Amino acid sequence: LVMSKGTVVLAYSGGLDTSCILVWLKEQGYDVIAFLANIGQSEDFDAARKKAENLGAKKVFIDDLRAEFVTDFIWPAVQANAIYEDRYLLGTSIARPCIARRQVEIARREGAQFVSHGATGKGNDQIRFELTCYALYPEVKVISPWRIPEFYNSFKGRKDLMEYAEKHGIPVPVTPKAPWSMDANLMHISYESGILENPKTHAPGDLYLMTKNPEDSPSTSDVLEIQFKNGNVNKQYLIGKHGVGRIDIVENRFIGMKSRGIYETPGGTILLKAHLDIETFTMDKEVRRIKQGLGVRISELIYNGFWYSPEGEYLRHCIAKSQENVEGKVQLSVFKGQVYILGRESPKSLYNEELVSMDVQGDYEPSDASGFIKIIAVR
Amino acid sequence: LVMSKGTVVLAYSGGLDTSCILVWLKEQGYDVIAFLANIGQSEDFDAARKKAENLGAKKVFIDDLRAEFVTDFIWPAVQANAIYEDRYLLGTSIARPCIARRQVEIARREGAQFVSHGATGKGNDQIRFELTCYALYPEVKVISPWRIPEFYNSFKGRKDLMEYAEKHGIPVPVTPKAPWSMDANLMHISYESGILENPKTHAPGDLYLMTKNPEDSPSTSDVLEIQFKNGNVNKQYLIGKHGVGRIDIVENRFIGMKSRGIYETPGGTILLKAHLDIETFTMDKEVRRIKQGLGVRISELIYNGFWYSPEGEYLRHCIAKSQENVEGKVQLSVFKGQVYILGRESPKSLYNEELVSMDVQGDYEPSDASGFIKIIAVR
Amino acid sequence: LVMSKGTVVLAYSGGLDTSCILVWLKEQGYDVIAFLANIGQSEDFDAARKKAENLGAKKVFIDDLRAEFVTDFIWPAVQANAIYEDRYLLGTSIARPCIARRQVEIARREGAQFVSHGATGKGNDQIRFELTCYALYPEVKVISPWRIPEFYNSFKGRKDLMEYAEKHGIPVPVTPKAPWSMDANLMHISYESGILENPKTHAPGDLYLMTKNPEDSPSTSDVLEIQFKNGNVNKQYLIGKHGVGRIDIVENRFIGMKSRGIYETPGGTILLKAHLDIETFTMDKEVRRIKQGLGVRISELIYNGFWYSPEGEYLRHCIAKSQENVEGKVQLSVFKGQVYILGRESPKSLYNEELVSMDVQGDYEPSDASGFIKIIAVR
Amino acid sequence: LVMSKGTVVLAYSGGLDTSCILVWLKEQGYDVIAFLANIGQSEDFDAARKKAENLGAKKVFIDDLRAEFVTDFIWPAVQANAIYEDRYLLGTSIARPCIARRQVEIARREGAQFVSHGATGKGNDQIRFELTCYALYPEVKVISPWRIPEFYNSFKGRKDLMEYAEKHGIPVPVTPKAPWSMDANLMHISYESGILENPKTHAPGDLYLMTKNPEDSPSTSDVLEIQFKNGNVNKQYLIGKHGVGRIDIVENRFIGMKSRGIYETPGGTILLKAHLDIETFTMDKEVRRIKQGLGVRISELIYNGFWYSPEGEYLRHCIAKSQENVEGKVQLSVFKGQVYILGRESPKSLYNEELVSMDVQGDYEPSDASGFIKIIAVR
Repeated sequence: LVMSKGTVVLAYSGGLDTSCILVWLKEQGYDVIAFLANIGQSEDFDAARKKAENLGAKKVFIDDLRAEFVTDFIWPAVQANAIYEDRYLLGTSIARPCIARRQVEIARREGAQFVSHGATGKGNDQIRFELTCYALYPEVKVISPWRIPEFYNSFKGRKDLMEYAEKHGIPVPVTPKAPWSMDANLMHISYESGILENPKTHAPGDLYLMTKNPEDSPSTSDVLEIQFKNGNVNKQYLIGKHGVGRIDIVENRFIGMKSRGIYETPGGTILLKAHLDIETFTMDKEVRRIKQGLGVRISELIYNGFWYSPEGEYLRHCIAKSQENVEGKVQLSVFKGQVYILGRESPKSLYNEELVSMDVQGDYEPSDASGFIKIIAVR
Repeated sequence: LVMSKGTVVLAYSGGLDTSCILVWLKEQGYDVIAFLANIGQSEDFDAARKKAENLGAKKVFIDDLRAEFVTDFIWPAVQANAIYEDRYLLGTSIARPCIARRQVEIARREGAQFVSHGATGKGNDQIRFELTCYALYPEVKVISPWRIPEFYNSFKGRKDLMEYAEKHGIPVPVTPKAPWSMDANLMHISYESGILENPKTHAPGDLYLMTKNPEDSPSTSDVLEIQFKNGNVNKQYLIGKHGVGRIDIVENRFIGMKSRGIYETPGGTILLKAHLDIETFTMDKEVRRIKQGLGVRISELIYNGFWYSPEGEYLRHCIAKSQENVEGKVQLSVFKGQVYILGRESPKSLYNEELVSMDVQGDYEPSDASGFIKIIAVR
Repeated sequence: LVMSKGTVVLAYSGGLDTSCILVWLKEQGYDVIAFLANIGQSEDFDAARKKAENLGAKKVFIDDLRAEFVTDFIWPAVQANAIYEDRYLLGTSIARPCIARRQVEIARREGAQFVSHGATGKGNDQIRFELTCYALYPEVKVISPWRIPEFYNSFKGRKDLMEYAEKHGIPVPVTPKAPWSMDANLMHISYESGILENPKTHAPGDLYLMTKNPEDSPSTSDVLEIQFKNGNVNKQYLIGKHGVGRIDIVENRFIGMKSRGIYETPGGTILLKAHLDIETFTMDKEVRRIKQGLGVRISELIYNGFWYSPEGEYLRHCIAKSQENVEGKVQLSVFKGQVYILGRESPKSLYNEELVSMDVQGDYEPSDASGFIKIIAVR
Repeated sequence: LVMSKGTVVLAYSGGLDTSCILVWLKEQGYDVIAFLANIGQSEDFDAARKKAENLGAKKVFIDDLRAEFVTDFIWPAVQANAIYEDRYLLGTSIARPCIARRQVEIARREGAQFVSHGATGKGNDQIRFELTCYALYPEVKVISPWRIPEFYNSFKGRKDLMEYAEKHGIPVPVTPKAPWSMDANLMHISYESGILENPKTHAPGDLYLMTKNPEDSPSTSDVLEIQFKNGNVNKQYLIGKHGVGRIDIVENRFIGMKSRGIYETPGGTILLKAHLDIETFTMDKEVRRIKQGLGVRISELIYNGFWYSPEGEYLRHCIAKSQENVEGKVQLSVFKGQVYILGRESPKSLYNEELVSMDVQGDYEPSDASGFIKIIAVR
């Protein structure tokens, strides 16, 4: 009889990698609790539960985090107009702290001293995951197999994993794996690595699962009206049928290397454009400039894994403050991969139709502008 | 016999407003030189020349500035990824200093102490125009009729202009004016005021002149390859047939009021997206962050009219410096209003396929990431 | 009998300029209410009241604003570490909105449609003053005599003022005016113009009124302990005997010209240094970086007169939020013009003596730093 | 006979720590080249050479880097007004890349694959040192004994080092070590750790070696005139007799912990204040704002060890560009720990005495300011 080394809560996906890790952790002498978060990815959760139980998980938690993912992570990102390096909407980056937050809650509740995950040693997700764990459960110990030489030297390729799986009764996927890796949630899907690693290679047309190919999307547009209050939205528009939100980028990872990623974020793209519009409509110009800078900053933090950090909390507070009057309706149409703002209205608008009108003089004295221009030309 | 008050170089468009101004300036006792810049707008330049001569212009200059507009203004804007308030590509803003630069050259050459323009007293263009004039010809005096009470109180609406025109033999347009105003050059067209002043009103479908309606645009995509060197492009892709580059925004004018503008910038949008891609591919991550901040800053300057200013020169120098290695090819497709990056390659790429690969270990030790994460979690 | 043009509340100093303005406003047909704020300047307030009454002021208000100046203006500036262009502690800039706030309160209460002040047409104070008035009382009309040609063309120099004073029974100062102008409050005194306009001229030794010449200051230091809570101080240390806080700078005015100013800010300098110390001691590193940027920004706003503005309110909110844990004691000594921090302690300190110690290993694994360094060197 | 593991160039100080490391490296099987940089610290270089030779160094290089330290490191820092966290002048931070640059030059020339240093595993210097090495000699391997468990577990305190020294014939210092550590060069001395680790403890009066105690410094001031050209100085003013430049701070290390440091930087403080003055005098206001932001950024980079990095090079280029007109003379006096600017003059001044004068009207129309203020109040 061997003493357990302790209990580890494993972020379990149901796939080959984390199934092997589950068994490997048991081999190392740990009790393993499997935790699978439902954040809107397409998955057979019942089958995943059974699989984990069969592989010897002491307990299995499958938690539906969709509502809190939207409320606590997507909305603040929308408020911030969060975009990394001018293009990436951070769909994976904001999911990690959501998952890890629940994982350490389980670890605390179940008295587990360890957490584990299947993120690779070259990526951003390991950092996002672990910084959240250390922030919310400072005493926890993280087991990161893909950074442990005994593990990663044994599993140099997919073939090694397959052999290990067969030896240990882990069900092996029957369909061949796509030649790239994928991460999905209700906001977006990301694709990277494999054949996508060559930045020149075009993505195959059948890669995208969440958005229709714009060439095949409806040939009539849909007109939507999105309503905001405090910078938040009252409904969800997370739809892919019009092919909106596909990007193919090279990005700078936190750890300094460049990588190529392909993302589809249909609803997030629509929301971002609508929010940007209502925000400019209702927010003072100079407050907007300051807030824009804070938004760039929090986008970097989110990407780098610092959602739970003193500066992350501070920036979210400041950004939320800026949203108090961001309220109103944006009308837009969606058509063949593109979003078109059509109009907007707001009870909190700072737009003064009379002031701006070329036909109405109002209080504004054009001759004042002469003094203004002369003064700014003094330099 | 009346002594002339001096010579004024008028930025003449050929339209009703500046024709009236031309005659009005003569009435005030000035000799008027009419100057019309060809920056790619659609215009009958011969007719405009004749009209100006008939109205009594002492001289008429119609100069083709298209090449220098591209080289000296569009390229630096592309290098900067210049965007105002996250959306507007500054197509009008960069045209003003180009036109005014030539205008003061003419004024100096012709010994004119005055320049004049038809920009309104509530807009940005008056500022862009005049700051350029004061920067390049500090002793010049600007006559801005729309800010002179005697002028603007006599011309309270279009009807007053029409009456004045008829009285002074100024040809009156036979077709009714569109219920908005417009500014065009080879990079873009902007539409504002009139019925567009209500931010809720949708733009009519026949407003757009430069881009096809995406619903009617070709149903097959075009694939382009854009080549960069020092952040500049070796060819022009300023095409509208795919309906790319339409935006409808509310923006903050320099003088503090919000206004609604509709813009179409087909080629500029394609260039911006391509440049963003090749830049991220070839530029160091941290240099990019610094340069991104400088780009936001110069975008505000350009919008506000400070193209010719000490800080404008300084920023353009710093941004150009950052572009020394921005070189390579971007493959993209254009379809129904949207641009899709497909791939990129560069002799100066900082992308290391081996380093990023999940299948290749290389020099990178995943276990180093453990130390990295622990250190950044120290706080 | 002439109808009054209305009532004007004049920011009255008791000196020659505003006395002449008082009389001149009456000549123009206004009823004049004189308002003199006590913000700690050295002044015979009773004599000033009598003088204003004798000159025909309808009412005279002399209000003690010292407490609210400290609470509502100095503390927020200290929290922000507010410094303009790296050197100027903004002692005059924060006094203007304090005075103008009360002035428009009086104007509203007394039903006055006008306010007036004696600030010159080339300085910053006119802007600070008027932006506050327009922000807090948008319908008010400002009468700024030094920008009204009929006024400033009649008073081209001090001699004209003296003659006007004699003619109108305004008491003329018997002692000759110092060859510079001065602005004082409990936080600081500024000196500018006159012989100081030549930036090469050294300031005369007898210029300074608030601080002792360090050469004559005590030859033993005083040790102080300053206690902070939420970034604020529980006592005042606004003393000049040690000669602290003298600076001689050239600064950039809002309206674009450079000017030379000499300032003495004894207590403010001590507070700034103490606050900087306790803040770094208790605030998270990255929150501090963000807050430092916000502090630079609000300093420019304050200097330019935007204390009461949407962005000013927003920044003060964000900065106050950052101060929640800025608490503790700073020990310092003051000696011959310099402040020396000696030590600090705080219940909210983030300083971890064990972690930083070279003799104690603690939880920190030095080998983690190897991974950290290798990762940050990846680029 | 044992094969050598290769040659290591050790940054040797002559003190106990690096002497022990020299011998320990030999024990591990390396050939050791000792390298000692003269950057102005007070040291018996001949004795150090002999000591290293006696301890078995294969070669000893003692290089005088004082001139290049001033030219290549101090001047760029002065141009940037480089200050970390508002207070620290970076005297140690800029010395590290200077030393490490020469060290890797020697390593390349001597065919050494290794470099080594005695910096601790909790500090910033290890990072500054190693990032420079990796940047300039990417294939080099760094041996950092204080991060190698076999080393640091054997040497848990000074006593262990003393015993090891005695055992291996390493001369042991006869005078007791000061209860803090110290780092000196011609620009500054820093003191930290030991009894200084308690942030509340006041520094003992006899700690300072470079500056006189202001209480004992001359009781008459010295007046200096410092001349700048392109933001650089034509003479050195690195003197301590007036007690200028002492600070006692808590700072945030790169690796996230707070530490207390005491610094004295006499000449650097004078230069910084003089440069700040001449820069504001000669540089356009808005260029200055941009450059101020770049200066904050490079200060962080320098502190964190990124002197040699793409962004470091880029920022130095941009900052140097801003200095082209920073030229002129600053008069200042130095007295009892404080620097007082007295006046300045420059052939490149942007200061316009006539424009700023309250007595001269010039081209400036005060009434223009009315329009300016009304326009900026539109919001």
